[in-house]
Amino acid sequence: MTTAQHLAELWPGERPEAARRLLSAAVESFAKRGFHATTTRDIATQAGMSPAALYIHYPSKASLLAEISRTGHAATLALVERAVAQAPEPREQMHRLVADFTAWHARGHTIGRIVNYELRALSEEDLAVVADLRRRIEDTVRQVIEAGIAQGTFSPTDTRTTARAVTGLGIDVARWYNERSTETPEELGERYGELVLRMLGAA
Amino acid sequence: MTTAQHLAELWPGERPEAARRLLSAAVESFAKRGFHATTTRDIATQAGMSPAALYIHYPSKASLLAEISRTGHAATLALVERAVAQAPEPREQMHRLVADFTAWHARGHTIGRIVNYELRALSEEDLAVVADLRRRIEDTVRQVIEAGIAQGTFSPTDTRTTARAVTGLGIDVARWYNERSTETPEELGERYGELVLRMLGAA
Repeated sequence: MTTAQHLAELWPGERPEAARRLLSAAVESFAKRGFHATTTRDIATQAGMSPAALYIHYPSKASLLAEISRTGHAATLALVERAVAQAPEPREQMHRLVADFTAWHARGHTIGRIVNYELRALSEEDLAVVADLRRRIEDTVRQVIEAGIAQGTFSPTDTRTTARAVTGLGIDVARWYNERSTETPEELGERYGELVLRMLGAA
Repeated sequence: MTTAQHLAELWPGERPEAARRLLSAAVESFAKRGFHATTTRDIATQAGMSPAALYIHYPSKASLLAEISRTGHAATLALVERAVAQAPEPREQMHRLVADFTAWHARGHTIGRIVNYELRALSEEDLAVVADLRRRIEDTVRQVIEAGIAQGTFSPTDTRTTARAVTGLGIDVARWYNERSTETPEELGERYGELVLRMLGAA
């Protein structure tokens, strides 16, 4: 899947074509220069539009960042919840969850970096929405670990630290993964899934 | 250890006091706004100096970033090599290495973020120096894993992926750790050391 396809998946149909073009342009601009050094003019130019046309859809570059961050977090929460719903028990749930979460951050490394490393640039209100999504991701991971402990499958040394290591491993992939990486996102996901089962004492 | 002490340790005695003040000011400015949105005037003001005084020590903000990145990477390489030199065998070497590497990124999370997330802003020449230091860190981690395999202590599923997961876990700490975190850098280091031994099949 290319970055363009990845983005198309994040911002499906109901959104006007121009809004989607602006979101993609904002992702590219923020990734290149960082949020603070990007102007709304940079984003409009990248999208082949005028600044005035941009303002019809988004009042500011901060509102673009907020939407990118919110949809990115919502997508990873959905993927984590899907892994739990579709696998029958904690061991498989965790393996699927880590594999999908890791592959998402490899495939969408550009957007993954913005979503995870530009949190400080969000307004207090936007950050609250994103923080809630992050909490739900962490909670889901922790619940799977607790279910595995109750069942006797997992024996972590510390549930909270392990839960954060699980999400941290996946998020960190966005930092270093690129198109020259030798592993596919899916291969990397499988391998990280195995590493996490080992961390939980369930390899 | 405070951030100021952490910085003092990175840039010890031989450097003029003004240069150290400029490096600290650059760290704070880059952390707040990102490299691209920071001006040399921002850095000089933060250091209580004029832009002209800044240029006596550093020709550009890029040269400040290069020095911060180079000294940060050199410090973590030194710490990794020290762990290997001081522990008698692979299992203890790895535990010490992960504990120290993780604690460094927790304690120095501000500088850790700049060192790891602003690599794209380095010139080709500066990046080559930093890339060499990063390679030596990865090589050291891989050699400890290979020594542990040869000795029958470690049984990773994949040496290269596990080596990258080891450094990735530690680096990711710089992303989320802050002064409100409930674990001390040392506690977190110990726990991550245990997690990594589990990943290696040596818990």
